[in-house]
Amino acid sequence: MRSISVFGSTGSIGESTFDLLMRQGGPERYRTVALTGGRNVARLAEQARSLKAELAVIAEARLLPDLRAALAGTATECAGGPMAVAEAAERPADWIMSGIVGAAGLAPGFRALSHGSVLALANKESLVTAGPLLMARARKHGATILPVDSEHSAVFQALLGENLATVEHITITASGGAFRDWPMERLAAATVAEASCHPNWAMGQRITIDSASMFNKALEVIEAKEFFGIDPDRVEVLVHPESLVHALVGFRDGGMIAHLGAPDMRHAIGYALNWPDRAHLPIARLDLARIGSLTFRNPDPARYPALRLAREVMRIGGLAGASFNAAKETALDAFIAGRIRFTDMAAVVEKVLDRLSATGGLGKVPDSIDMVLDIDGQARRIAAETMQ
Amino acid sequence: MRSISVFGSTGSIGESTFDLLMRQGGPERYRTVALTGGRNVARLAEQARSLKAELAVIAEARLLPDLRAALAGTATECAGGPMAVAEAAERPADWIMSGIVGAAGLAPGFRALSHGSVLALANKESLVTAGPLLMARARKHGATILPVDSEHSAVFQALLGENLATVEHITITASGGAFRDWPMERLAAATVAEASCHPNWAMGQRITIDSASMFNKALEVIEAKEFFGIDPDRVEVLVHPESLVHALVGFRDGGMIAHLGAPDMRHAIGYALNWPDRAHLPIARLDLARIGSLTFRNPDPARYPALRLAREVMRIGGLAGASFNAAKETALDAFIAGRIRFTDMAAVVEKVLDRLSATGGLGKVPDSIDMVLDIDGQARRIAAETMQ
Repeated sequence: MRSISVFGSTGSIGESTFDLLMRQGGPERYRTVALTGGRNVARLAEQARSLKAELAVIAEARLLPDLRAALAGTATECAGGPMAVAEAAERPADWIMSGIVGAAGLAPGFRALSHGSVLALANKESLVTAGPLLMARARKHGATILPVDSEHSAVFQALLGENLATVEHITITASGGAFRDWPMERLAAATVAEASCHPNWAMGQRITIDSASMFNKALEVIEAKEFFGIDPDRVEVLVHPESLVHALVGFRDGGMIAHLGAPDMRHAIGYALNWPDRAHLPIARLDLARIGSLTFRNPDPARYPALRLAREVMRIGGLAGASFNAAKETALDAFIAGRIRFTDMAAVVEKVLDRLSATGGLGKVPDSIDMVLDIDGQARRIAAETMQ
Repeated sequence: MRSISVFGSTGSIGESTFDLLMRQGGPERYRTVALTGGRNVARLAEQARSLKAELAVIAEARLLPDLRAALAGTATECAGGPMAVAEAAERPADWIMSGIVGAAGLAPGFRALSHGSVLALANKESLVTAGPLLMARARKHGATILPVDSEHSAVFQALLGENLATVEHITITASGGAFRDWPMERLAAATVAEASCHPNWAMGQRITIDSASMFNKALEVIEAKEFFGIDPDRVEVLVHPESLVHALVGFRDGGMIAHLGAPDMRHAIGYALNWPDRAHLPIARLDLARIGSLTFRNPDPARYPALRLAREVMRIGGLAGASFNAAKETALDAFIAGRIRFTDMAAVVEKVLDRLSATGGLGKVPDSIDMVLDIDGQARRIAAETMQ
C-alpha cells in the first residue's frame, strides 16, 4: 500500500489531490500518513476521516482544539502550528504533495525530501527561492521531485526519454492574463477586481493577479531554469491566449515536442500522483477541430516588465530568486490593499533588487533554508520601505 | 565505425539521407556497405565515390555497364538488376535506409531486417502491405524499425518514454492537399497539374496527388495501426493546413503530446539516422510567434473517401492493405495518364476491394512476401479491368 502525505490539503491544489486520491481508491489504496491545512478545520477533518489519515495538522495553532473536537472518535492524531506542519514532513511517505502556498511551504517540502521518496512540488516558491538547495537534497537522498504546475509538468512530460543536452529551448506558454489586450496607458489605473479575472484558469486571486502582471510567469521561468538545470537563455515565454499548449521543447534536430491539455490542474497533479504510469483522469479531452486554432505571440516587454526582472534574477542567481519573490509578494499585498498601482509592482521589485544588489551578497548561493528566509525578510522590509 | 546501406539512394529520401551522411562526416564516420539507385547512374556513381561505397547497385540491369564505367578506378563493386538490389540487402549493416518507392522497396527492407540492426523505413508500402510480416521479422531478429515519415516519426517521438497501453488516440495530421478548399463539384474535373501542387511539402508528383485525394493519409493511417500495434479506432486524422504539427498522441490522463517542426523530410531521416541521440540538423526552426496560428479541422468524409476505405482495409486486415495499395497505384497511374478522373480513383479502389472481398481470402494474414506480391498483382489486374 502506497503511503502519502498532503501539505496544504484544504487549498486548491490539496482539494484536487484529495479528489484524485478518493477517485483512485481512497483509504483502500493509500495509507495517508499526514494531511495539513491552514485554517479550514472542518474541511481538514472531513478529508482526514475520508482518507483515515494517521495525522492531521492545522497550521493555525489556536484551532487545534477545534480540530481535536472534529476528529473525536477517530484514530487520527491531531497537531497544530507551523512547527507541527514541518514535523509532519519528517514522517516518511512514498509520495508527498507540497501544496502549501508561499514561503511557508518551503520547509515541509525540503524536509520531506530526506525520505528519498517522490515530492510532488506545487509550491512555486521552493524552486525560485531555494532551487539549488532542493535539487541537491533530492540528489543526496535519491528523492524524485515532480513538478506540479501545468507548464513544468508539461515540460517534464515533453522531456520523457530525451536527453537534456539536446535541448535548444524550453518554452512555457502564458495566457497573457487579464490585461493582455488592454491599451498600455490603461494599465496604471487597473483595479484589483479587473486584475483578478483570468481568461482561462480558475485560480486564487493572488496568482490571477500575478498572471496579469506575468510575475507568475517570471517565477515559472526561474523555476524551469532551476528544475531542469538549463541555461537561462534557453527558457522562453510565448503568449498563447487559449492556454491549451502548456509548454514546448525544441531540440537541436529541429523537432519540437509540445504538451497540450485542458486547463485543469488535476492533470499535473494526477500525472505526479501516478507517475511513471498515466492513470485515467476525469479531465476534458481537447477536440482540436472544434477549437479550430491555437494562436501564439511574443510577450510585449513593456507590458510585462516582470519577465525582464526574471532574466536579471537568473543572471544574478543565489539569493536573487528569494529576494524577487519576497519583494513581489509584498508589492502584491500593497496592490491588493489599494496602496500602490498595478504598474508600481514591478517598480517596487526592481528597487528591492537594486538595493540588495548594491549591498552585495545577492548572488551568494544559500547553504540553508534559514539564509533563504533571512533574505526573504530583508526583501520584504525594503519593499515596505520603498512603498512608504 | 557505423556501417550503413541506402536503398533508393538517388530518390528524394535517398538524396536527403546522402546529404545528412555527408554533413555528419561522410566516409570518415560511416562505412557504406551498399547504395542502390533506380536509373540515375551518374548520381549513384557520384554518391558511391563520395561515401566510398563498397557496393553500388543500379536497379535497371541494362545500365550496369554505364555504372561500371562511371566507377572505374574506384574500389566500389558494381551490380545491376532487381535481384542484385535484394541481394545487397543481405549484406549486414548497422543502419539501413529503405527508401525505394513502391512494391519494389518491400523485399530489400524485409531481407535487411534479418541483420538485427536498425531499419529506417521510408517505403510506405512495406507496412501497409506486409505489416505483420515485417514486425514479426523485426522481433525475431531483434531489429529495430524506425519510421521515416514525418507523421510516424512524430508519433514515435511523442511516444518516447510512454506506455502504449495508456494511449487513447494517435492523431496524424494532413494538410488537406491541393483541393482542400475547392468546391466539391469541381473535384471531378481536377487536372493532373492541379492535383500536383502541394500547399506545403515539396515532394514527388505521385505522393502530391495522393495528398490531394488523401490516399497518402489513408496509407499512413494503416501504417500507424501496423507500426504501433494500436486499435484502428484509435488512429485519427486531423486536417492541419499549416503542416507544422505532424502528429499528436492523447493519453488516458487527458494529456496530449504533439510533435511540431518545419515541413522538411530531413528531420525524420536525421532522427532515424541519429536515434536514440538527436544530432544537430540543418533544419529551419519554428518561430510560433511569427507563424501566429495553427489551425485544425476534421477531414470531410465526402471530399476524402480514401479515409473511409482505409478504415475498411483495417477492419478486414490480412491482404486488404496490399490490395488497397495496388489498386490505388493502378488508379493513380490511370489518372496521371488522363484515362480516369480524379474522383474516379476512390471508386476504382473500392470496386477492387469489393471484388476481392467477394472471392474470399482477403482477410488472410500473409505468411510470405510472395503472397503479398501475388495479391498485389491480382488487385492491379482487377483495377485495370475495372477501368476498361
